[in-house]
Amino acid sequence: MATWLLLLSSTFFTHCYSSSAKIAPAFPPSIVRPDQQLLITTKSSDHHYKEKFYTQILDHFNYNPQSYHTFQQRYLINDKHWGGANDNAPIFVYTGNEGNIEWFAENTGFMFETAPHFKALLVFIEHRYYGKSIPFGGSKEIAYSNSSTLGYLSSTQALADYATLILDLKKNLTSMDSPVVVFGGSYGGMLAAWFRLKYPHIALGALSSSAPILNLDNITSPYSFSNIITQDFRGESENCYRVIKKSWKEIEDTAARAGGMEILRKSFRICKDFINVGFLEGWISTAFTYTAMTDYPTPSNFLNPLPAYPVKQMCKAIDDPKTGNNTFEKIYQAANIYYNYTGETKCFDLLDDSDPHDLGGWSWQACTEMVLLTGGTTEESMFPPSNYTYLDRLEYCKEQYNVVPRPTWIPTEFGAHHIERVLKHFGSNIIFFNGLRDPWSGGGVLKDISKSVVAIVAEQGAHHVDLRYSTNEDPKWLQDVRKREVHLISNWLTQYYHALSHHHHHS
Amino acid sequence: MATWLLLLSSTFFTHCYSSSAKIAPAFPPSIVRPDQQLLITTKSSDHHYKEKFYTQILDHFNYNPQSYHTFQQRYLINDKHWGGANDNAPIFVYTGNEGNIEWFAENTGFMFETAPHFKALLVFIEHRYYGKSIPFGGSKEIAYSNSSTLGYLSSTQALADYATLILDLKKNLTSMDSPVVVFGGSYGGMLAAWFRLKYPHIALGALSSSAPILNLDNITSPYSFSNIITQDFRGESENCYRVIKKSWKEIEDTAARAGGMEILRKSFRICKDFINVGFLEGWISTAFTYTAMTDYPTPSNFLNPLPAYPVKQMCKAIDDPKTGNNTFEKIYQAANIYYNYTGETKCFDLLDDSDPHDLGGWSWQACTEMVLLTGGTTEESMFPPSNYTYLDRLEYCKEQYNVVPRPTWIPTEFGAHHIERVLKHFGSNIIFFNGLRDPWSGGGVLKDISKSVVAIVAEQGAHHVDLRYSTNEDPKWLQDVRKREVHLISNWLTQYYHALSHHHHHS
Repeated sequence: MATWLLLLSSTFFTHCYSSSAKIAPAFPPSIVRPDQQLLITTKSSDHHYKEKFYTQILDHFNYNPQSYHTFQQRYLINDKHWGGANDNAPIFVYTGNEGNIEWFAENTGFMFETAPHFKALLVFIEHRYYGKSIPFGGSKEIAYSNSSTLGYLSSTQALADYATLILDLKKNLTSMDSPVVVFGGSYGGMLAAWFRLKYPHIALGALSSSAPILNLDNITSPYSFSNIITQDFRGESENCYRVIKKSWKEIEDTAARAGGMEILRKSFRICKDFINVGFLEGWISTAFTYTAMTDYPTPSNFLNPLPAYPVKQMCKAIDDPKTGNNTFEKIYQAANIYYNYTGETKCFDLLDDSDPHDLGGWSWQACTEMVLLTGGTTEESMFPPSNYTYLDRLEYCKEQYNVVPRPTWIPTEFGAHHIERVLKHFGSNIIFFNGLRDPWSGGGVLKDISKSVVAIVAEQGAHHVDLRYSTNEDPKWLQDVRKREVHLISNWLTQYYHALSHHHHHS
Repeated sequence: MATWLLLLSSTFFTHCYSSSAKIAPAFPPSIVRPDQQLLITTKSSDHHYKEKFYTQILDHFNYNPQSYHTFQQRYLINDKHWGGANDNAPIFVYTGNEGNIEWFAENTGFMFETAPHFKALLVFIEHRYYGKSIPFGGSKEIAYSNSSTLGYLSSTQALADYATLILDLKKNLTSMDSPVVVFGGSYGGMLAAWFRLKYPHIALGALSSSAPILNLDNITSPYSFSNIITQDFRGESENCYRVIKKSWKEIEDTAARAGGMEILRKSFRICKDFINVGFLEGWISTAFTYTAMTDYPTPSNFLNPLPAYPVKQMCKAIDDPKTGNNTFEKIYQAANIYYNYTGETKCFDLLDDSDPHDLGGWSWQACTEMVLLTGGTTEESMFPPSNYTYLDRLEYCKEQYNVVPRPTWIPTEFGAHHIERVLKHFGSNIIFFNGLRDPWSGGGVLKDISKSVVAIVAEQGAHHVDLRYSTNEDPKWLQDVRKREVHLISNWLTQYYHALSHHHHHS
């Protein structure tokens, strides 16, 4: 199964994106619900931000001549509800993760929806080497060509980018006293939490959603990821779990038989003659994995269009098959929910390596510092047996990039071990949200650490569900999560403005 | 006057080090007082540490092929009083600054003297590019040859060095639960404070002594540095101040006269024919500056051997001249206290650029990120008028290294503006010590920020006087400062061990 995907690893899995799965650019928040809209039509609506560029330094930490090179870093800005510099109105910043920034902006409705209440300026900053924020003259061909040019793609550089961009923006807005709150989900949530910890002088607080900051250096079990997915499906029905679990051997046995590959090809509606059993298993595993991650309570379109509670829908397809009663048909129908909910795709291309969200840089990050190992399976796992370890990662990275990962660097730089003890008396104003149906939640902070470094845990939640646009169908627990987040952020701001006015009275 | 020296700028000033001024390697702490001993004899005593080397990575923040290069980083270790891994006994780490590490170890008696009480392991880590910790095969010629090789000399790299070295050392000692407290003076004190802020998962607390972390980005007045020195001398006597203040014009007028250079040469006992009035003024200013910095209450030998209260002695030389009554003789006798307290030097070589403490890398740091501007003078200043600004620094750096400083980087990376507001509810366990006679104290944290981010201010103190070996003649205020520091560090450790045992009981 996938061993390092945070969102997606196109290296181990290939995907078949139906054209309708591409996400429309932006949506009027609060008026038309984008998730709903998306399922109806993909016509683009008005952008709700301006696209801007900042001249960013290539290397913040060294002073070699090449470190002074610059590149154009993209950010999106929305000042519709901003209270302005005179009132020191707040600035909400999304710390972009491994994809193009529009995609994250469009899936972070929480910021758009709370902006009027907080009179907040919204800024979404794109992560270097993703989207349009490409060093070396904006040329992805050059920037991604080898480890010399890719070398500047690192989390510490990204955080320093955010620091310099935010300060420059505030200066240009003559709004130096505006408090900044950072938001992020997944890797972006890791960055948000780390940004608050490393740059408290720039960010007042962080909403770090579904950030597996403990999925490092053996702190989190390598089985956790697949165990949670297994539990998600097994929780729906024991039969669903058993059908999936036994399917792998049937697939492999069939593949080994004469004419078996053609049976598999037809069973799973693979377009081309080529079918490789490893690719097929990866393709199916991906469907289960991403469906578990995005097991949202309402229809959504984060990775692909999906119905509400898609894990339940998948198990329904397995438990109550409509179109046949053999294992392959059941698994196919389940996978079809993930890959083809709109029903438009007639056959699937396992070798399609299209990357609509521009996530390709992640495999470099996974090969250098982001050594989040998730690929192990226990005997109970619904996935094919896998013993994936750091050594497998190492082998891949040497082959792919001729690079050796530094697996202890991230815990060295940001901390991870004994986080409760470390942050009990250090740091403040961080919310760690996790939904326990999200396989990444095993690497998240699930307990309050101090009065203001808090964990919000939603048993029914999936991957950064809190950050999504609200809908009229949201369950109460999700409404409560968001209310609590708004309440905590309000408290940070209140305390900040109090200190600010106190300071001004005394100076 | 000196415009960027933290300890020393051999670029603007040249010094004449008498051979006796070189510091003997090490001293038996508590038994023979090193300062006293030094003034008696320079014979070397037993080293009180072992010298070790760690294979350090060249670039922590990027992943280009050259970033994987390594170098040998030196550290000194003393385990005489360590309570050991089984008891999780503490580790005290000196975060080395811009010189060879023995020199800092020898001038940080506080760590040696408190080690028995705390059962602490002592570790002094040398800063990259100083002493024996030279990248590029240990060759200073290569490492210092151009901005490509010097580029990796930065504060963020140094802090990351300390992080990786400390974690590796603890792993090798199987002492992962030993709390680490970091200590540093001057730039080393800036690093200690920043280390606690950036690596709270590695350091429990920091004693940051005489660290001008606010002398950046116009937060501290550019006149502060020379104003404090002026006040030090003026506080001794108005006459002392006036003689110094008027001396510069006399020197310049004399230099402009026929035969005047020879008069100056003889008056100031300059060895060689060459005398340049700028060098001479720099040489004299340096004496006043460093004497103010090291205006310790007992005899000392930090930069040069000096008597107790050397500023007072200088003013005495000016106010009660023994060997003549003209301005030059008075100034010469004052400077002679700094340059030649042992009386062994017969004449001074203004062009001598020897660098016994290996401080040469600082000018690179000052030309890249350490833009601490201290060179301005007000009308009241005892120094020659100076209007030194960032533009002068820029011009020098372009010429010297073909490099453009990044003056906003350090405040961006570490914070400086509104530090009280930022750290009021973030961070803990930092002691900022400052002595108000120290010209650097103007850039220090002089007020408590929170319950555990505290300022200790000694009106009579000079540059990191608290870190020095104690002597029987120490005034009560100095004893009290050290007692309070010990008390605060004890509290951090008590709280840590409490949390540790609590944690173990629950796991």
